Amino acid sequence: MIHLNPNYGKLQSNYLFVEIDRRVNRHLANNSKRKLIRLGIGDVTKPLSPTIIKAFHQGVDEQASEDTFRGYGPEQGYSFLRAAIAQIDYHERGCYCIDESDIFVSDGAKCDIGNFQELFAFNAKVALPDPVYPVYTDTNVMAGRTGFAQDGRYQGLTYLEGSEDNGFVPSPRDMRNNPADLVYLCFPNNPTGTAANREQLDDWVQWARAQGAIIMYDSAYEAFITNPDIPRSIYEIPGAEECAVEFRSFSKTAGFTGIRCAYTVVPGSIVIDGIKLQDMWNRRHSTKSNGVSYPVQRAATAVYSPEGRRETKENIDYYLANARIILDAMSSLGYQHWGGVNSPYVWVKTDEDSWTTFGRILEGADVVITPGSGFGKMGRGHIRISAFNSVENVQEALERIMKLLKT
Amino acid sequence: MIHLNPNYGKLQSNYLFVEIDRRVNRHLANNSKRKLIRLGIGDVTKPLSPTIIKAFHQGVDEQASEDTFRGYGPEQGYSFLRAAIAQIDYHERGCYCIDESDIFVSDGAKCDIGNFQELFAFNAKVALPDPVYPVYTDTNVMAGRTGFAQDGRYQGLTYLEGSEDNGFVPSPRDMRNNPADLVYLCFPNNPTGTAANREQLDDWVQWARAQGAIIMYDSAYEAFITNPDIPRSIYEIPGAEECAVEFRSFSKTAGFTGIRCAYTVVPGSIVIDGIKLQDMWNRRHSTKSNGVSYPVQRAATAVYSPEGRRETKENIDYYLANARIILDAMSSLGYQHWGGVNSPYVWVKTDEDSWTTFGRILEGADVVITPGSGFGKMGRGHIRISAFNSVENVQEALERIMKLLKT
Repeated sequence: MIHLNPNYGKLQSNYLFVEIDRRVNRHLANNSKRKLIRLGIGDVTKPLSPTIIKAFHQGVDEQASEDTFRGYGPEQGYSFLRAAIAQIDYHERGCYCIDESDIFVSDGAKCDIGNFQELFAFNAKVALPDPVYPVYTDTNVMAGRTGFAQDGRYQGLTYLEGSEDNGFVPSPRDMRNNPADLVYLCFPNNPTGTAANREQLDDWVQWARAQGAIIMYDSAYEAFITNPDIPRSIYEIPGAEECAVEFRSFSKTAGFTGIRCAYTVVPGSIVIDGIKLQDMWNRRHSTKSNGVSYPVQRAATAVYSPEGRRETKENIDYYLANARIILDAMSSLGYQHWGGVNSPYVWVKTDEDSWTTFGRILEGADVVITPGSGFGKMGRGHIRISAFNSVENVQEALERIMKLLKT
Repeated sequence: MIHLNPNYGKLQSNYLFVEIDRRVNRHLANNSKRKLIRLGIGDVTKPLSPTIIKAFHQGVDEQASEDTFRGYGPEQGYSFLRAAIAQIDYHERGCYCIDESDIFVSDGAKCDIGNFQELFAFNAKVALPDPVYPVYTDTNVMAGRTGFAQDGRYQGLTYLEGSEDNGFVPSPRDMRNNPADLVYLCFPNNPTGTAANREQLDDWVQWARAQGAIIMYDSAYEAFITNPDIPRSIYEIPGAEECAVEFRSFSKTAGFTGIRCAYTVVPGSIVIDGIKLQDMWNRRHSTKSNGVSYPVQRAATAVYSPEGRRETKENIDYYLANARIILDAMSSLGYQHWGGVNSPYVWVKTDEDSWTTFGRILEGADVVITPGSGFGKMGRGHIRISAFNSVENVQEALERIMKLLKT
């Protein structure tokens, strides 16, 4: 008789955003006088830019004719897209250690980050920030790298605590001498919006090289970095190409949340147990995937054209202006806050149970935010507010919140 | 220090089609007098039909405007697509046990089949046909459910031998009293092109229910079934909704190999260890995926419109006419063969090492076929010829092969 993977039974609760949806739907069913404004899940609202739409249509048209039709593409992605990524996202930033062959196109950073841990030994010791995007934790729980949860934390994981003290940028010192083989980092951070500077990233790279550890570097929000001194890629740090895998996405950069395109960088110079990690991922990727939709890859490539880059930057600037509105409102309410400058997320200390704040703002302002506790124990007493919405909606939402919370 | 998942080290060789590509590229580099004709990998060649293209463009256009833009969609797929699948692929075939909530849209059947085994206990006993699509085996090797390989077979797996005796349709009797918790079946079969009839499928369903086993039913080629007595879905067999998961794809049905859309059916009535398997897959799917590109789902939905169905059937009939050409040629050469009637694949017994036949046909006819041994020990001495190409190319390829192999 078959049995289930028992590790799924350790998962504490529903996936955060599924739970938020459940509560929002209950609210909507009871109460729909005022327009609901969503500043919760980090989902873009601006349409695809004209240059991207044009390329997408051209890609579709190619599939309509026998002469230009393309069936299965390379599992790793088409060379036209991989070459554009290598050139513009890496070589232009001085990261000559990365080339086309290191880049694996996929349909989402969430899938890649979730799947990548399969390549490592079952008993690999995992460290991850708290607060953190729940996917890092949940996928390691499913894989059996943890014990059961107690008070919001799984046995067997090392939590790198973010706090006021370290400005929500944990350092290797926050490991507190726990061993770790695999460390998840995310900068600009989801949920705190904080960005790590060069020195902070260098500390991590030096630590990983000394330990023989691998850094899983999630930089899905790099396009929001405005401070020129903040690295956009871990590969701006010398030596990272020997110890770090980088996950990036077109979702937030170019409004692709509904289109699905991302990529993972696995440098050929990472060697573990005498084997190239790139070869392992290539094997996994070609065995369990058939690559990304051709017209989608054409659309993603247009992001790198001169017009695509200009249009994309305009959209990013639009969301960053929204973040400014949120920051100003939180300052005027007297709340301590982080993020919002190199990130579309503002992280706010409210000093009350996060789901209580979530409920108060949902009921009292008809605005959806994200409870900080959904990202971990250190997120308790905090909320995340997202800048992804129209400026009109962000203004209205913050006016409602100010009215509600002003004492 | 981190270590790799040691199970990857058990994988015998490169993924079959990667190896074929390698040999074909070497051939092309040495020799390019005549046009190479590919009847190897099962990749469609006909462009998307007009109705599908139109819906695809409309989906892209919706992403160009603020009012109709959609970001993250439901991880399970949009209701408009799931409802069309339930109605046309199941209710119209009399399978009222399947409804919209049982259907999970994804970007490929290969991913779903590869990932689904994660839901089961690590020590689940696996049985799979030989010959077989390599993904079933390789993903269980990666997951650690096997020992090392010896003479083309992994320790710990039960192989259901296909042969002349059972017409390459293994039955539960081929289990030879080995225990199994998880059985992979694929009909119409890849690579043999054989289809299981109602009695044969009923045997499997009764066996699985008696054993408390789960059937992973791959019916990616159901659209090619021409015999009205052959079930198109495992759910045409009473009781299957309690023991079978079905994997389907738009790849071969509607020419989506480059577009990427598929779906998996996990009936709500499958309960293991007191837990609904559907809830487990839902959790996996929403934690590790963000669903399928919106315009792609629009295109897939158009497959179910009256015009879409007509156009799709025309394309299937076109490939089946090609299969007829291949069957006739093999008959005239005096080779024993299977498939090609309810399937785009013709399976041919050549009684010589498959890679030798592959090499002879590649060098002597500039035609790519697939060596049967790439699908398992029982595939030795056989080759698979695919009907996916233009009728002109299929005719030319078979003429070249007849000239080469006629004694």
